[in-house]
Amino acid sequence: MQDNNLEPLYIKVKEMDNTAIIVNDGGLKEGTVFKCGLELKNKVPQGHKVALEDIEKDGEIIRYGEVIGYAKNRIEKGSWIRDAVMNLPIPPELSTLKEYGTAKPNGPLEEEYTFLGYRNADGSVGIKNILGITTSVQCVVGVLDYAVQKIKEELLSKYPNVEDVIAINHNYGCGVAINAGDANIPIRTIQNLAKHPSFGGEIMVVGLGCEKLQPSRLNNREDNDNIVMLQDQNGFTNMIQSIMSMAEERLEKLNQREREEFPLSELVVGMQCGGSDAFSGVTANPAVGYATDLLVKAGATVLFSEVTEVRDAVHLLTQRAESREVTDTLVREMDWYDKYLNKGDVDRSANPSPGNKKGGLSNVVEKSLGSVIKSGTSPITDVLSPGERVRKKGLNFAATPASDFVCGTLQLAAGMHLQVFTTGRGTPYNLSMAPVLKVSTRNELKKQWSDLIDINAGTIATGKATIEDVGWEIFHDIIATASGTKTTCADKCGIQNDLALFNPAPVT
Amino acid sequence: MQDNNLEPLYIKVKEMDNTAIIVNDGGLKEGTVFKCGLELKNKVPQGHKVALEDIEKDGEIIRYGEVIGYAKNRIEKGSWIRDAVMNLPIPPELSTLKEYGTAKPNGPLEEEYTFLGYRNADGSVGIKNILGITTSVQCVVGVLDYAVQKIKEELLSKYPNVEDVIAINHNYGCGVAINAGDANIPIRTIQNLAKHPSFGGEIMVVGLGCEKLQPSRLNNREDNDNIVMLQDQNGFTNMIQSIMSMAEERLEKLNQREREEFPLSELVVGMQCGGSDAFSGVTANPAVGYATDLLVKAGATVLFSEVTEVRDAVHLLTQRAESREVTDTLVREMDWYDKYLNKGDVDRSANPSPGNKKGGLSNVVEKSLGSVIKSGTSPITDVLSPGERVRKKGLNFAATPASDFVCGTLQLAAGMHLQVFTTGRGTPYNLSMAPVLKVSTRNELKKQWSDLIDINAGTIATGKATIEDVGWEIFHDIIATASGTKTTCADKCGIQNDLALFNPAPVT
Ligand SMILES: [Ca+2]
Ligand SMILES: [Ca+2]
Ligand SMILES: [Ca+2]
Ligand SMILES: [Ca+2]
Ligand SMILES: [Ca+2]
Repeated sequence: MQDNNLEPLYIKVKEMDNTAIIVNDGGLKEGTVFKCGLELKNKVPQGHKVALEDIEKDGEIIRYGEVIGYAKNRIEKGSWIRDAVMNLPIPPELSTLKEYGTAKPNGPLEEEYTFLGYRNADGSVGIKNILGITTSVQCVVGVLDYAVQKIKEELLSKYPNVEDVIAINHNYGCGVAINAGDANIPIRTIQNLAKHPSFGGEIMVVGLGCEKLQPSRLNNREDNDNIVMLQDQNGFTNMIQSIMSMAEERLEKLNQREREEFPLSELVVGMQCGGSDAFSGVTANPAVGYATDLLVKAGATVLFSEVTEVRDAVHLLTQRAESREVTDTLVREMDWYDKYLNKGDVDRSANPSPGNKKGGLSNVVEKSLGSVIKSGTSPITDVLSPGERVRKKGLNFAATPASDFVCGTLQLAAGMHLQVFTTGRGTPYNLSMAPVLKVSTRNELKKQWSDLIDINAGTIATGKATIEDVGWEIFHDIIATASGTKTTCADKCGIQNDLALFNPAPVT
Repeated sequence: MQDNNLEPLYIKVKEMDNTAIIVNDGGLKEGTVFKCGLELKNKVPQGHKVALEDIEKDGEIIRYGEVIGYAKNRIEKGSWIRDAVMNLPIPPELSTLKEYGTAKPNGPLEEEYTFLGYRNADGSVGIKNILGITTSVQCVVGVLDYAVQKIKEELLSKYPNVEDVIAINHNYGCGVAINAGDANIPIRTIQNLAKHPSFGGEIMVVGLGCEKLQPSRLNNREDNDNIVMLQDQNGFTNMIQSIMSMAEERLEKLNQREREEFPLSELVVGMQCGGSDAFSGVTANPAVGYATDLLVKAGATVLFSEVTEVRDAVHLLTQRAESREVTDTLVREMDWYDKYLNKGDVDRSANPSPGNKKGGLSNVVEKSLGSVIKSGTSPITDVLSPGERVRKKGLNFAATPASDFVCGTLQLAAGMHLQVFTTGRGTPYNLSMAPVLKVSTRNELKKQWSDLIDINAGTIATGKATIEDVGWEIFHDIIATASGTKTTCADKCGIQNDLALFNPAPVT
């Protein structure tokens, strides 16, 4: 792709596919003839699909070996296949999904891999040494942000082993329907964020006093001596002083900690995609899937997520469940989300975005098939509801919306140490609580955003690297980042993002 | 209240009330005898209610001249009346509310009042001269926050007439159901925030490129030369440069502006309460209501809001509607919110908060009666749906949730220049886009939070000032704050808060 003299090239994923995507930058013009003799009937943009055979009216349009749509009218071989010429297939009927156990565990890796982390008192392991300060209600955020800035300026440099001070800010806590059926989701998310292993168990809580979500519900400790209540303070100056002096005590303790060596079984890695294009499913996501398999073989925990991008390919996942119970839980999460969308009068055509379509992804089925590849081939050992913490090592489906920051926040609540994020169109997404390794699907994006993309999987499309090559590169970068020897591009730039809480219940 | 030697004191609001609230700090103990001969049967905390007469089982419990509950069992004269001894009344049946026109316009003020503001090209008037930078999607927030910090450090001091640089950050734009029925609410809110009069029409837009909410939808201009698209930039460094250089052009233009004198008819003031207690309805809110009447008499526009705190007293508002059409619109907004809460399986008992109850507010009916007093006595000239802009001068009901930041954000979208915020329990609430004048309901809060409370209405309870006195004080402080000659406590402290968007539609 970066080579302008590249011969006309397409990628066909599975033998039975009757479509392929165009590799060449800028697309290919009408009349282009490929080595195999195929001739383009239309101009086809980069990443968009071409028909490899004639497809009759109502005929199946196949990619990844799966039906991604039905032809509205006859499609001639060599034609551009886009959203407008296809009918969307019906999603897998959830009640029929009973299968499990088709995926066999991949054997362990030959070599044993370790990373350098921080041991916590409760036995968990962190990859960063961060002072975390959580909040029970949005009312305190302005005061806390001010205090955090002051801690960074005046205290942090005195404690060189502490890497950062982070406020867990959110829009929850009051003015919300705290007894609604779905309120358990935001509440457990906030509770589990405070337990994040990179906070070393020294979390502080800043509360107001009169809020619905009482601060004691966020506290992991027996005593309440890590809570600052603003309504108990004598004005703003005193609020800042109280937060600063409690922070200094915690910084002192955290500063005692040093990195130790741990097996990969202590590591929790999240996988996500955002700003996807048609290359996502053939370059970056398969490479991430390969890295997922390596991690699971090494004993690590891997989270994949994004319900709306999994729903249409869920039949490929249920069969990989380790047990019937896991299949049932996966189906239950899909069903919950179907109902959640129905309540808002939304259907699944809401995903993909205009950028996805511009990048060649015709519909949610095609997007889903490319998205679930991130999960590799291992058995699925557990399914987490939104905001739940990891219970089992191995491959986990953590049910979350696909929205990047909402998914990231929920994976952090699950205990994710770091995230791998694939992107085709490009996004400067980052998380404050965990490093994010960004993988580009195309050479052009890596070239254009050289200071934001950590790993380029575009080389897979142009034949310069294999899926295995890039998969191993991701795997090694994960270990280096976890160990603190590699800094991600987004962290080098200094991009800080707020969390985005998933609250499916009403505000009041 | 601040006087420990204060004789036993209660406040009864209306002649027909059979309850009153205790004024004394720390409450009053069992056996206390008031001047009138009433003797307390129990210890009653400050702000809590005492029965002034015997109330039979199922008898009406009356405050503000309205039924706030029914006695579960017989209540003896002198007893403490709290939530547990009352049944909640049924809210006014919306379909029966047809009345309008009972409120007569209050005559104009004798004196003419003016403020110093900035004239905008479109004829509107701002009270601040701020460079606003809006966003089409949450993905760009990390980059924009970085750029805004750099603009403040490197550029702002070169343009002394520009008061601030503010990013309009939100969690919307992608990963949302953008075609859902209720998506019009967050979309028009973001659109109208960009039109805020204190931005002087020089708003910038930072977008990503592939998001669902395309940046052109936020643009007020014919051309697109005020949009920076991150996917068009060459990496992070270039993104920051592009934002900075566009900002500098805008700062140059904004710096030309100077304050001019305007009549109060150009001013839009929002009223809100948060962290309320039983004094809210007898001190701060009546004083705000008095100021509301003064503003409306002077020709200004006043917004009051908070649907869940108005719902149970809505029969007192519909009759004050200027026309049948206004009554119908008010009823329609209440009905929409009833349905929104029902979808989430929530009922109105979700409001009040634990802090409200601790402060003596037994239930949402009592809270509502105290809350609507902020609207004064003028006719209601218009009702705005969430996120809509003001269309008519005078008293407007802007339908919003009661949640402080969500209400603040929607009042800003309506075009609010500044807000008056009453609080009993205390909150360090602030808005970045507009000054917030904070009014305390009790002397103790003003004493404890002297650097956060602008105006103390607690003096009304202890008889040191009248509702009229404090109402005029609020009125004069509004004019001084709008004119830039007074800085609010929260702004002096430097408290910055993010907006909180109201999105009743699903995320995807
Ligand atoms: Ca995503
Ligand atoms: Ca990070
Ligand atoms: Ca409020
Ligand atoms: Ca402000
Ligand atoms: Ca923020």
